[in-house]
Amino acid sequence: MHEPVWSCIVNTGQTWTVGVTGATGYAGGEVCRLLAGHPHLRLAGVHANSSAGRRLGELQPHLLPYADLEVRPSAPEDLAGYDVVVLALPHGESAAIAAQLSQDTLVIDCGADHRLEDPAAWARWYGGEHAGAWPYGLPELPGQREKLAGARRIAVPGCYPTSVTLAMAPALAAGVVEPDVVVVAASGTSGAGKAAKPHLLGSEVMGSVSAYGVGGGHRHTPEMAQTLGAAAGAPVKVSFTPTLVPMSRGILATCSAPLQAGIDAAAARAAYAQAYADEPFVHLLPEGQWPTTAQVLGANTVAVQVTVDPDAGRLVVVAAVDNLTKGTAGGAIQSANIALGVPETAGLPLVGVAP
Amino acid sequence: MHEPVWSCIVNTGQTWTVGVTGATGYAGGEVCRLLAGHPHLRLAGVHANSSAGRRLGELQPHLLPYADLEVRPSAPEDLAGYDVVVLALPHGESAAIAAQLSQDTLVIDCGADHRLEDPAAWARWYGGEHAGAWPYGLPELPGQREKLAGARRIAVPGCYPTSVTLAMAPALAAGVVEPDVVVVAASGTSGAGKAAKPHLLGSEVMGSVSAYGVGGGHRHTPEMAQTLGAAAGAPVKVSFTPTLVPMSRGILATCSAPLQAGIDAAAARAAYAQAYADEPFVHLLPEGQWPTTAQVLGANTVAVQVTVDPDAGRLVVVAAVDNLTKGTAGGAIQSANIALGVPETAGLPLVGVAP
Amino acid sequence: MHEPVWSCIVNTGQTWTVGVTGATGYAGGEVCRLLAGHPHLRLAGVHANSSAGRRLGELQPHLLPYADLEVRPSAPEDLAGYDVVVLALPHGESAAIAAQLSQDTLVIDCGADHRLEDPAAWARWYGGEHAGAWPYGLPELPGQREKLAGARRIAVPGCYPTSVTLAMAPALAAGVVEPDVVVVAASGTSGAGKAAKPHLLGSEVMGSVSAYGVGGGHRHTPEMAQTLGAAAGAPVKVSFTPTLVPMSRGILATCSAPLQAGIDAAAARAAYAQAYADEPFVHLLPEGQWPTTAQVLGANTVAVQVTVDPDAGRLVVVAAVDNLTKGTAGGAIQSANIALGVPETAGLPLVGVAP
Amino acid sequence: MHEPVWSCIVNTGQTWTVGVTGATGYAGGEVCRLLAGHPHLRLAGVHANSSAGRRLGELQPHLLPYADLEVRPSAPEDLAGYDVVVLALPHGESAAIAAQLSQDTLVIDCGADHRLEDPAAWARWYGGEHAGAWPYGLPELPGQREKLAGARRIAVPGCYPTSVTLAMAPALAAGVVEPDVVVVAASGTSGAGKAAKPHLLGSEVMGSVSAYGVGGGHRHTPEMAQTLGAAAGAPVKVSFTPTLVPMSRGILATCSAPLQAGIDAAAARAAYAQAYADEPFVHLLPEGQWPTTAQVLGANTVAVQVTVDPDAGRLVVVAAVDNLTKGTAGGAIQSANIALGVPETAGLPLVGVAP
Repeated sequence: MHEPVWSCIVNTGQTWTVGVTGATGYAGGEVCRLLAGHPHLRLAGVHANSSAGRRLGELQPHLLPYADLEVRPSAPEDLAGYDVVVLALPHGESAAIAAQLSQDTLVIDCGADHRLEDPAAWARWYGGEHAGAWPYGLPELPGQREKLAGARRIAVPGCYPTSVTLAMAPALAAGVVEPDVVVVAASGTSGAGKAAKPHLLGSEVMGSVSAYGVGGGHRHTPEMAQTLGAAAGAPVKVSFTPTLVPMSRGILATCSAPLQAGIDAAAARAAYAQAYADEPFVHLLPEGQWPTTAQVLGANTVAVQVTVDPDAGRLVVVAAVDNLTKGTAGGAIQSANIALGVPETAGLPLVGVAP
Repeated sequence: MHEPVWSCIVNTGQTWTVGVTGATGYAGGEVCRLLAGHPHLRLAGVHANSSAGRRLGELQPHLLPYADLEVRPSAPEDLAGYDVVVLALPHGESAAIAAQLSQDTLVIDCGADHRLEDPAAWARWYGGEHAGAWPYGLPELPGQREKLAGARRIAVPGCYPTSVTLAMAPALAAGVVEPDVVVVAASGTSGAGKAAKPHLLGSEVMGSVSAYGVGGGHRHTPEMAQTLGAAAGAPVKVSFTPTLVPMSRGILATCSAPLQAGIDAAAARAAYAQAYADEPFVHLLPEGQWPTTAQVLGANTVAVQVTVDPDAGRLVVVAAVDNLTKGTAGGAIQSANIALGVPETAGLPLVGVAP
Repeated sequence: MHEPVWSCIVNTGQTWTVGVTGATGYAGGEVCRLLAGHPHLRLAGVHANSSAGRRLGELQPHLLPYADLEVRPSAPEDLAGYDVVVLALPHGESAAIAAQLSQDTLVIDCGADHRLEDPAAWARWYGGEHAGAWPYGLPELPGQREKLAGARRIAVPGCYPTSVTLAMAPALAAGVVEPDVVVVAASGTSGAGKAAKPHLLGSEVMGSVSAYGVGGGHRHTPEMAQTLGAAAGAPVKVSFTPTLVPMSRGILATCSAPLQAGIDAAAARAAYAQAYADEPFVHLLPEGQWPTTAQVLGANTVAVQVTVDPDAGRLVVVAAVDNLTKGTAGGAIQSANIALGVPETAGLPLVGVAP
Repeated sequence: MHEPVWSCIVNTGQTWTVGVTGATGYAGGEVCRLLAGHPHLRLAGVHANSSAGRRLGELQPHLLPYADLEVRPSAPEDLAGYDVVVLALPHGESAAIAAQLSQDTLVIDCGADHRLEDPAAWARWYGGEHAGAWPYGLPELPGQREKLAGARRIAVPGCYPTSVTLAMAPALAAGVVEPDVVVVAASGTSGAGKAAKPHLLGSEVMGSVSAYGVGGGHRHTPEMAQTLGAAAGAPVKVSFTPTLVPMSRGILATCSAPLQAGIDAAAARAAYAQAYADEPFVHLLPEGQWPTTAQVLGANTVAVQVTVDPDAGRLVVVAAVDNLTKGTAGGAIQSANIALGVPETAGLPLVGVAP
C-alpha cells in the first residue's frame, strides 16, 4: 500500500541521475527537495565531507523520503558516474572538483567560483586566481537561454544578484534610468548558511533587523555590476546594502535609480511588461500590488513591481524571490532543464507556500 | 517560450475538474496550491461569496498561475458541473450546499458539519440539528480506506484531531495506555483563519505564546474523543489545551497517558511501528529524533515520536503536521485520491519546505 | 507586603498628572508603559472613545499595574484637569481636541496634525486645512531644545522621520553629501497600528517582507523633506521606501546620498561624532559595528553607524530605533521632560530588551 | 547636557556594588539590564573568562550605557570586593567559585548548583557530589521570604520550575488536585543560551516548534518535583515536556492534574486568589482572560489563570513568565532585594514590553 516517492509523476521520457554535494546544507537540501518532484531528474546520491557516513535524515529532517540515504564523501572520485552533479559548496571549493569531472557530466555550481567574468574582480573580491567563467544560469537575461542549451557547466547566480538583476536589467537595457543604482535588500537568514554562528542564533535574529556588508562590502556587488553592466551596455554604479530580517527564506530587493529625462511611469512599466511577457517564472504584478516574499516562498517565481517617484526623480523597483529556490536551487534546476533539453519549468513549483 | 502551468506533469490518465469554495481563505488557498501539482485533478473554478467578482490574485498573491481567475459566488447552482467540489467554509454552511449537489459529485467538506457521528455531541458543541456524518477522511485509521473508496461525500478531519488521533490511536488500540489522554498542542496562526481579528495581528502574535479554549472548550475535543474512543473500543477522556505560537503553519501535539501495567518502551514503540509500517505519509522517526513542525511544512507528512517516562508512569507521544496540508487540504486530497481510485499519494508533497 | 506600583521610585520633586487618550492603541500603551517608571509623571487617566467603560487590562494586558483603570471617553471635557495630556490618535483628530484644552496644559500630539510647517504640504498629503505647526519634538536637532523648553504644545515626530532625520541630518548639515537622499526603511508591524486589517495578520506578516507606499507615497516623506531641508539649509530630495518586516517593534533605516567631492570616510564620521557627542540617547557605534533593532528595543536610544562606499560614491548611514519608544512615546516623554524642566532622561530606558 | 545613566533614579538610601560573572550571556546580560534601573544596586564590574579583555558593547550591544566596560576574568579573586556577586554560569561552575567568596558577600547563583536539596537527585541528574542547597529564591513560596531575609547565599530557581511551581503549588497545597501533574511548557530560545548550536539557528527555529527532553529527561524535572512536593506535603509525580517555540523570550506553562473529588471551579480558583492576593508580581487574571508571554516580556511579573475541565476531571492552569526576567535575572534581584532589606519590588519592571 506504501506508494513509492515517484508515484505521482509519470515519467515518459529520459531520466538523468543527480548527485548533490553539500547536500547537508541549505542550498543542497533545497536541491534535494526540488528533485523529489522532478519528472526527469532523480536524486541518486548525497555527499558532504563533514557528515560522511551519517543518515541524511539526521541532518535534513524534512527530506523524509530520503532519510535513509547515507551521506558520502565529496572527493571527485565519489562524484563520478552521475549524469548531473550539483556543487553546493563554499566558494573556492568547486573549481578543483569540477576540473576532475567528465566533460560529459552536467556540472552545476551553486557557488561563486565561475560567476565573474573579470579575473581582476575575482582577485579583488575573493582573492587568488580565477577559475574562469561558466555560462551564467539566469535564463531571463537576453540571449542567455541559447548559451545554456546543451551546456555542461553552469554557474548559478548568487541569490541577491538574481533578484537585483531581474529588478533592474529591463530599465537599464531600455534606457529608462541612469546607470547609478541603489539597492537595499532584505534577506532571510538561510542566505547566511547553516554554520552555527552566534549572530545567526534564533535569539539574536528574531525581533531584529540589521545591516551588514554596508558600504559596498558584499561579494555579490561585483556580480550585480557585471549583470547590470551587460544589460546597460555600459558600466553601472551599484550601491548595495543587504539586511538580515527575521525570517528563514526570501529576499525583497528594493532598487532605485535616477530616471532618464523624458521617461514617465508608462514608459518605464512598458519596459518591464515587454521584458517579462513570455517568462514563465517572472511576474510583473498588476499596478498597485506590491511583491511579498511570502508569495514566492518555496517557488521558482519572481514577483516584480515598478513605479516612478516624480518628486525624487527616480524609478523604484521591488522584486521578491525565495533565496533558496529561484535564488539558488530552483534557478539551478531551471538552467539544468534548458541544458538537458527538457521543458524549462519541469519540476519547479509555480505556487508559493503561503501563508 | 512560456510553458503552461501543467507542463511538468504528464497526465496519462483520467482528469477530474475541481471547484473550490472558500478559495480566498487559508484552507481553500491550500487546496488550490496542491491542485497546481496534481496529475489527475484540475482546478476549474474558485468561489467565495464575499469576494465574488475579484481577481484571485488580489486575494491569494501566492497562487500566481491562477491570479487571473475570477472569484465566483458559492451558491449551489454556482457549484454545479464540477466533478469534485471542495467546501472550505465555516461550519454550518456546508450541509445546506452539499444537500443540493448531485450525488455523483465528489463533495469534500473541510468544515465540521459532517465529522461527528453523535447528534448529541453536535448539538452540544455546535448547536442545532446535525446534518449527519460522512466518511471520515483519515485513511490511516484501521478500515478507513475501505470506507473512502468510491465515496462521494467525505468529511475532512479537523487539524488538531488529525495530529492527536495519529499520535494516540495506536497506543489506545494496542492497550498500551489507559483511556485518559492529556494533550497540549501548539498551532500556527493560520489555523485561526484569515478573518482580521485583533488578537491575530502580527504585532500580537509575534514574540508571544498563549493558550485558548482551555478547560475542554475547543470544538475539536469531541472529535478527538470520537476517533480515540473508536481506536480504544471504549470511551476515552481527553484533556485538550490548544496554544497559539508565533508561526504561520504547523501543529505540534504533545500527548500523554498513563501506561498500562507491564508495558515498557519497546512494547509501546512496537505498537507504532506496526501501525505505520505501510503508511506513505506517517513517519515514526528513529529513536532519539523528535518531530519539528518545520520538517512537515507544506507537506502531507506526519512526523511521530514516542517514549516512556518511567518516573511519571506515562507514555509521551509527539506528532507534527502542517495544519493546512495534512491537517486540511492535503488530507482532503489524499482522501479524494482514494475515493477516485488514483494513487493515494498523487499530487501530495512528501518533502517539507525547510528551513 | 504588597508593594505599591511606585515603590521603587523615590520621587523627591514635583509630580505632574498625565492623561492619555488613545490609550488602548500601541502608541498610547507605550506612553503608559513608560509612565510606570517615571519619577515626575503619573498616569492619572486613560481615554479612548471606542472602548470607553472597559477595563484597561482587557485591552492592554501587559499594563498589569493599570489593569483596573476604566477607560473613559476622550472628548475635550474628559481630558480637562490633567497637567499633561498625551494625544495618541489618528491624524486629523488631535487639532480639534487640543484647541479646547487649556493653554496651561502641556499637550503632546503623537499624531501628524502639527508636524508640518507648510500648509501646502499638509493639504497635499493629508488634505484640508492645516491646524498649524507646534514645536517639533526632536531635541537632537540644533536649537530644538530651546524651542521645547517651557513649551505647552509639542508635535511628536513620526517614527520614520525620527530615524531618518537622525541618520542624515549631520551629513547634510556638514555638507558631506548632496541633497539627494535615498532611504529604505524596515519597520515592525506595530507601526501600522492595532486596527485589525487582513494584511497585518500574523499569518501574513510572519515569514514575509513587503514594501508599501513605494514611489514617494508615504505621508512621512514630506516630514523628512522638512527636517532634512532644515538641516541642509536647502531643499532635499528624498526617495523613501518603507518595508514591513516580521517583527513587532523597530525601525532600521538604511540611508544613502552621493558624497560631496573631497569628502572621505574620516570627514564623514567626524560630522556624526561631533553632532552626537553630548546626546544622551544617540549612540554612534564604534567603527565596524552595525546597528540592530534588537539593541534599542523598548529603549529611548538610537544606534547609528556611517560609512563611505567609494565605488558607488555614496555615504551610507544606518540608524535603528524602536518605533514605539524613541520613535513615538519615548520621544514624547523626552520632549515633555524638557518642557517641564526635569532631567531630559527621566523615566526613559537606556537599555534595550535583548535578546 | 549629557545626563548620566543614573539621572532618573533618586537614590536616597544605601547602595551596594554588584559584580556579574557570565555577563556576556543571556542571563548575565539581563541582570545588567535590570541593574541599570535599580535604585540601590550598581553594576560595578562584568566578568566572563571567554571574553576577558573585550568591550562589553561588542558582546551585548543593547547594554549601551555599559558599552565601554571591559570584560574581566571570573576567577574568585577577580570577584572579590563586590557587595553582591551574581553568578550566571553553566551548572557545575558556581560552587567552586562561591566557596572562595567572603561569607559577607551576597552571592546569587543563577545556575543549578545549589537548588536541589537531595544529594541523590543531584547525583542522578547532574552527576558528581552535591555542593549543598542554598535558600531557594522563590519568595512566593510559603515561608520563603523569611529564609531569604538577610541571606548571603541564594539559589535562583530554574526558569521552568519558576513558572510551573507558581502554576501548581497553590492547588497542591490546598488539596485541590491529586499529586500527579502533567506539564507541557513552551519556551523561547533564549532559555537555551547563547552558545552557537545548529538547532538554535534562526533558520531552524523560525517557523518551527519542537519538543525536547521528552519523557522526563529535562534537568528541571527534579526541581519541580521538589517544590511541588513541598507544597503538597507529599511526593508529586511530574510529567514534564518542554517545547521550543519561535520567539526569543518567554515561557508558557500549561499544567494540569486530576481534580480531587468534590472540588469545583470556585474552590479551585479560591486557592489561587488566596495564595496570590498580596503578591506584587503574580497576577491571577480575571476569569476568561488567558495569559500570554507578551504581557510579561521584560517584566518580573507572572500571569496565571486557572480553570476546571469537568469532562476530563482535571484542573488546568496556565502561567506565563519571561524566562530571563522573573525566570532568572528578575527573580534573582527580587530575592536580593529581600536579602538586603530594600523594597522587594525595587528596580523590577512591573509592565511588560508589548506589543
